[in-house]
Amino acid sequence: VSVAAALARIVGQEHVRTGSALRPFLHDATEARNLRGRADAAALPATPEEVAAIVSWCHDTGTAVVPRGGGTGYAGGCVPDGGVVIGLERLRRVRALDPLEWRMQAEAGVTTRDVQRLAGENGLFFPPNPGAAEQSQLGGNIATNAGGPRAFKYGVTGAWITGIEAVLAPGRIVSFGGPVRKDVAGYDLVHLLVGSEGTLGIVTAAWLRLIPPPAARYPIVALYPDAGSGCAAVAAAMASGTVPSLIEYLDGAAVEIARGSCPLDLPPGGPFMLLCEADGDEQEAERGRGLLLEALSDGALTVVAPPAGGADQLWRWRETVPTAVDAFLGGKVSEDIVVPIERLAEAIERTHEIGARHGIRACSWGHAGDGNLHSSFLFDRNQPDRARSAQAAAEELFSLALELGGSISGEHGLGLVKSGHLAGVWSPQVVEAQRAVRAAFDPDGLMNPGKKMP
Amino acid sequence: VSVAAALARIVGQEHVRTGSALRPFLHDATEARNLRGRADAAALPATPEEVAAIVSWCHDTGTAVVPRGGGTGYAGGCVPDGGVVIGLERLRRVRALDPLEWRMQAEAGVTTRDVQRLAGENGLFFPPNPGAAEQSQLGGNIATNAGGPRAFKYGVTGAWITGIEAVLAPGRIVSFGGPVRKDVAGYDLVHLLVGSEGTLGIVTAAWLRLIPPPAARYPIVALYPDAGSGCAAVAAAMASGTVPSLIEYLDGAAVEIARGSCPLDLPPGGPFMLLCEADGDEQEAERGRGLLLEALSDGALTVVAPPAGGADQLWRWRETVPTAVDAFLGGKVSEDIVVPIERLAEAIERTHEIGARHGIRACSWGHAGDGNLHSSFLFDRNQPDRARSAQAAAEELFSLALELGGSISGEHGLGLVKSGHLAGVWSPQVVEAQRAVRAAFDPDGLMNPGKKMP
Repeated sequence: VSVAAALARIVGQEHVRTGSALRPFLHDATEARNLRGRADAAALPATPEEVAAIVSWCHDTGTAVVPRGGGTGYAGGCVPDGGVVIGLERLRRVRALDPLEWRMQAEAGVTTRDVQRLAGENGLFFPPNPGAAEQSQLGGNIATNAGGPRAFKYGVTGAWITGIEAVLAPGRIVSFGGPVRKDVAGYDLVHLLVGSEGTLGIVTAAWLRLIPPPAARYPIVALYPDAGSGCAAVAAAMASGTVPSLIEYLDGAAVEIARGSCPLDLPPGGPFMLLCEADGDEQEAERGRGLLLEALSDGALTVVAPPAGGADQLWRWRETVPTAVDAFLGGKVSEDIVVPIERLAEAIERTHEIGARHGIRACSWGHAGDGNLHSSFLFDRNQPDRARSAQAAAEELFSLALELGGSISGEHGLGLVKSGHLAGVWSPQVVEAQRAVRAAFDPDGLMNPGKKMP
Repeated sequence: VSVAAALARIVGQEHVRTGSALRPFLHDATEARNLRGRADAAALPATPEEVAAIVSWCHDTGTAVVPRGGGTGYAGGCVPDGGVVIGLERLRRVRALDPLEWRMQAEAGVTTRDVQRLAGENGLFFPPNPGAAEQSQLGGNIATNAGGPRAFKYGVTGAWITGIEAVLAPGRIVSFGGPVRKDVAGYDLVHLLVGSEGTLGIVTAAWLRLIPPPAARYPIVALYPDAGSGCAAVAAAMASGTVPSLIEYLDGAAVEIARGSCPLDLPPGGPFMLLCEADGDEQEAERGRGLLLEALSDGALTVVAPPAGGADQLWRWRETVPTAVDAFLGGKVSEDIVVPIERLAEAIERTHEIGARHGIRACSWGHAGDGNLHSSFLFDRNQPDRARSAQAAAEELFSLALELGGSISGEHGLGLVKSGHLAGVWSPQVVEAQRAVRAAFDPDGLMNPGKKMP
């Protein structure tokens, strides 16, 4: 029996992809590295039982299994290296929506936007906003523990997950946690699966915790002459007495690239930009805005509180920054290193030093309050040697993150891109503990092989 | 070499306990079940290196290791069944206190009160307040993932931990996570260790995330004729548009037992009590109080907002409830089951039905907003048959929790008390996953044996 025929028996012929129809399942949203995988076939199951049947067949035949959500990751976590891709887009039932109990149970293929929309329509709020909301899916957000700007105040995706249904090797459906808000009966396998990039199991559904939304959100934009003064302002914002819902930054080079489409009238010359937001009820958000306006003014070229209607426009622009940077020369390599907050300025500046050493244009932006940079090296994609230089520069970011006491991924995960870097990063004891966990869940090494820990 | 002599070589003779000096290390704060363990000796190491040396010696000699914090648990998690007890009270260094970066690194033996005090003195706030703050220690809070009233808004202890240093079998010091606020490089072993009750490793230090404190906290107390109307008010509070920092309840029987010492003038007859708190900046807390006063009034006998100074007194009284219930007849068996919030009234009422069936006085109180009950059965400790009845009644709570879609422990952990109950609770697949994780960390079965999963 061919792989495709076996999959067709489980999900139906019309939900199996091979040949040219398989192509969209072989890469993720970032093609900068030309990460194009290979696979025997992709299957689009509609139920957890079908997922389990596929995983079971794969185990019986020694075939690798690679789960795929919206494909909007940046680390190649869904890029297969042989075997079967399981696309989860047809698992899109919202199984429970309990507004009075502040919770929802949704399947892995529900998009981030639909989760946010359903919460909102029911007077509630799902805080994580990792971006690419129309395309990214809940399962992928969980598999990568996706972050985003609001993680500063509200935490990453995992903070909002109380239960997970998943298919584990060799093809069994399990449920960890559930609708209850607290549970210490067992080991916390819910949060062990969160961020595990499909290497421990395939998330098929999750229980989400929701909260009432903040009534008001007020953005503040501030510009500084350089990263040093901008990062001093981040510290000032943190000492202001309020908890901003987000503290984002764009360094001068990123501002320069993206300023054409910015709804604000930015001066030329690439100032360093901070974007903050105060949220809460009307009074609290107003008070927060006042405190932040004052805190951010020290050393600033300008501090602006855009009018109420301007906020959405501003955040939409912020969401386009990665694309704008990507489009600038046609190619980029970007890493999402994270450092202790007091080392942020240094990490931003040294991203440029690394670029300069390789003769490559650099810029960064990211979640300043969380010390999470998207450090990027830009290249003309028609010049293979430039791409290699950008790649070499990016490799240096990993040692930079470690030297500064940080980590090589704040929110994108390791995927294929960073999977080789951990043995050098951690102590042998930590590597051993990580390996032992993987072996406990995937003794045959068929669950998204080559990802996370190699 | 005797155990004591071997330990003395590591920590010094004066930090080894045997004979009658060992006695305080053989039980935890709840003696209702007469849980008194046995051990060869206890050692009080002063550094992670000494902890590692002890664990290493124990592994070389096949000796069990039982870590112990403040001993204020309710599930016997620190009660040894042979082997060596490691008391962590001398690991009390605060290694880093970085107010500007909203974080602290403290060793396992630092008390909850000291963590809270140090945060407060530096203009910050460590939200978890599991109780017994003077005696309970950070390491124990982490090992049990301790909750408490404020978990409703702020989450349990694990939500505030970004890094853990621990000693793993067979005696190695590891660090997972660190001062960074986000990290998806590896599997989330930080939160796997949180709540693992010393069965995967011994926590020696942790990085804590802090936030600016709420400027104002306004308590609200409401009384209802019964659990049904009281729990309807919990739902109303959740629909009020604000997020209370806590929603606590005491059922009529608990109120009746504890009312003598209550700073409020409570009517007799055992009304059902809700305690809520609105916090935030001055305006937000005031607005929250207004919304809660309105939401809680439906069906209430009375709703009171105590004066500002009255809050501390009220919370101190709330903290004495477990002791008051314990003292009432001299003995109690208490379980901290958790249920989906909409089943809370049913869980409270059925606690009484179970008690009645066994001819045992029952009461409950707990974290209403989290669906977390402390269901208790009271007995005269001089009547062994009553103790057995109470015990039998408590066993029924476990099936009740499961029947209602909940879990057998919301915040106390399984310890010794509940460790036998999981195989019946979970699917074989989940049991297998839990066992695999334990085996990955403790292949020789020497880390707090008999606890969590047997």
